[in-house]
Amino acid sequence: MRKDVHLLLRSIVPENQEFPMVSLSSRINPNELFFRRNHFPYPEVNFKKWALAIQGCVKKSFHLNYYALNKFPKVTLPATLECAGNKRALYHPKARGEQWELGAISHAEWTGIPLRKILKLSDIQPDAVEILFEGMDFGHRADVPGTYFYARSLPLHKALHPETILALYMNGEPLPFKHGFPLRLIVPGWYGMASVKWLKRIVVLNGPFQGPFQKLDYILLREPGDYENAIPLTNMQVNSSIAHPADQSILRRGKHIIYGVAWSGISSVTDIKVSTDGGSHWESAKWVDPKVAYSWRRWEYCWDAVNSGTYTLLVKAADEKGHEQPDQALWNVKGYANNSVHKVTVYVG
Amino acid sequence: MRKDVHLLLRSIVPENQEFPMVSLSSRINPNELFFRRNHFPYPEVNFKKWALAIQGCVKKSFHLNYYALNKFPKVTLPATLECAGNKRALYHPKARGEQWELGAISHAEWTGIPLRKILKLSDIQPDAVEILFEGMDFGHRADVPGTYFYARSLPLHKALHPETILALYMNGEPLPFKHGFPLRLIVPGWYGMASVKWLKRIVVLNGPFQGPFQKLDYILLREPGDYENAIPLTNMQVNSSIAHPADQSILRRGKHIIYGVAWSGISSVTDIKVSTDGGSHWESAKWVDPKVAYSWRRWEYCWDAVNSGTYTLLVKAADEKGHEQPDQALWNVKGYANNSVHKVTVYVG
Repeated sequence: MRKDVHLLLRSIVPENQEFPMVSLSSRINPNELFFRRNHFPYPEVNFKKWALAIQGCVKKSFHLNYYALNKFPKVTLPATLECAGNKRALYHPKARGEQWELGAISHAEWTGIPLRKILKLSDIQPDAVEILFEGMDFGHRADVPGTYFYARSLPLHKALHPETILALYMNGEPLPFKHGFPLRLIVPGWYGMASVKWLKRIVVLNGPFQGPFQKLDYILLREPGDYENAIPLTNMQVNSSIAHPADQSILRRGKHIIYGVAWSGISSVTDIKVSTDGGSHWESAKWVDPKVAYSWRRWEYCWDAVNSGTYTLLVKAADEKGHEQPDQALWNVKGYANNSVHKVTVYVG
Repeated sequence: MRKDVHLLLRSIVPENQEFPMVSLSSRINPNELFFRRNHFPYPEVNFKKWALAIQGCVKKSFHLNYYALNKFPKVTLPATLECAGNKRALYHPKARGEQWELGAISHAEWTGIPLRKILKLSDIQPDAVEILFEGMDFGHRADVPGTYFYARSLPLHKALHPETILALYMNGEPLPFKHGFPLRLIVPGWYGMASVKWLKRIVVLNGPFQGPFQKLDYILLREPGDYENAIPLTNMQVNSSIAHPADQSILRRGKHIIYGVAWSGISSVTDIKVSTDGGSHWESAKWVDPKVAYSWRRWEYCWDAVNSGTYTLLVKAADEKGHEQPDQALWNVKGYANNSVHKVTVYVG
């Protein structure tokens, strides 16, 4: 019997679909099961005319078309991308925005050119502080008037990091259109909003970028309007999810494999614990995947459900820097960065 | 741009997938977007050997193979099927079972033979009280030991109703395997559990059927174990859903079409009201679809969101028998029949 596994639709325009975590069966998501998160309708891409522009505080501004870019030496690196709004639906009280459950996260191998190789050619001026990345997707926002391209900046140190790449390939295939063809920035370890799709322009800035996707979104806003004290999101926080069993499942007595994934941004998850009694006792789960930089790891735990009853299963990860998931993540107006210990309730018959 | 709209996966084995209500765009669901709800893994169907058996308290028991059945005169009727667990995820506190949101419901046109024509050939004995329908799907349950085929009974009056049919076609195509090929009972107006798939046997009974899908499931159980006072589910209750906008959406100021569906089991929905202020004021919405027996109706309401703010949108349907959706449906252990007034919160920028 063919398994009909597809992305879980949240919104049609802009297209937002999540990976169905219940179907987790491999470390790498096939491209068609990689989550899609868009701010605007898909852009029109005129591939023949397309060329990446490098401009701003540089001594040499220039353009590179697809064929020119493709001639550069490339690196391949795995990276898990997680939308900052992943698990928003699990916040109480509810937070506004797309109600992502567990699957606004996926993992792929990206092949591309280290960004710093390209920036080097432009000879960045000494007063540069940020690099701006502008996509081809644009549209309106609900909160401020006007038309905006999707655009985000990176601090110099992250832009020049050897593993920040301009990706042309995803899992060995040319970047699929819905994932940013012809070119996508990949910022390993950061929440997905940094990895700008349909990249058309890189601008070297001598001051901080003030665009709405930098200053109004992707910040931890504790009170509506309190932008002054808001903290910008960067690295993905240590986190983990139970893929199976699903919340409110009814199980037979006996052995069950509890399994899922765990990840952390620029660190690696090294510790994974499961509780089957609501958090009173914890035991180490088993890693299914080895430790690889920027990569989620699958884990599993064999549970012998001897007695009938209601059970609360929890999973908690820690990374090698000692960061541990909180019992309750900090609720924030826009519902970002929910890395609360994941909890599911099951009934054993 | 191709729209990637698929069923929303809840569970792989047994396969449970819901219609993505956010994609509502036609009255009839194409077969591939009709929700799938299974109790067991898919059965193996040996089509060449398959023949429907009619037995029990009858004067003539017999078998009919696919070709013999297909020669009977057929009727076509539209019917909305709703899983009794539809909207279970919206119950608070959470109820055990598949966490269906809005889409464990779909609408199709079914073509088949009125069941009573077949029963007539068997010459039912006068002591008959129920008709049992047994599918080819089987497996274990979490609550009681043993192996069970999926089986449900109908009272005589419903089995003999001229619009209770043995369906061979769905939306003009041979019944898809995942929807019960070769033969499915369709019980219009009743919750979907009555419409047994992969039908292999019809047994005329002279007493009430006691199988677990009749006596342990599909009953309104107010307290765990209180089977004595449990009410069996039959007709779908009057209900409605907001398909758009989604809960927690962020909208621009201005005009928005709020839309969705409404339905009732053996009655027709005739009254549909929307509130955009949390239930203080209600206005009639507009029907998109005409009144047709057993069929959901799409509705829409044009809302002018003049001011920024948080809004609670509600929809409430009533049927021609005067049944109205309750503010809060009766919570029950198995989370069935949630027909609470549907409520979504949106933010206008």
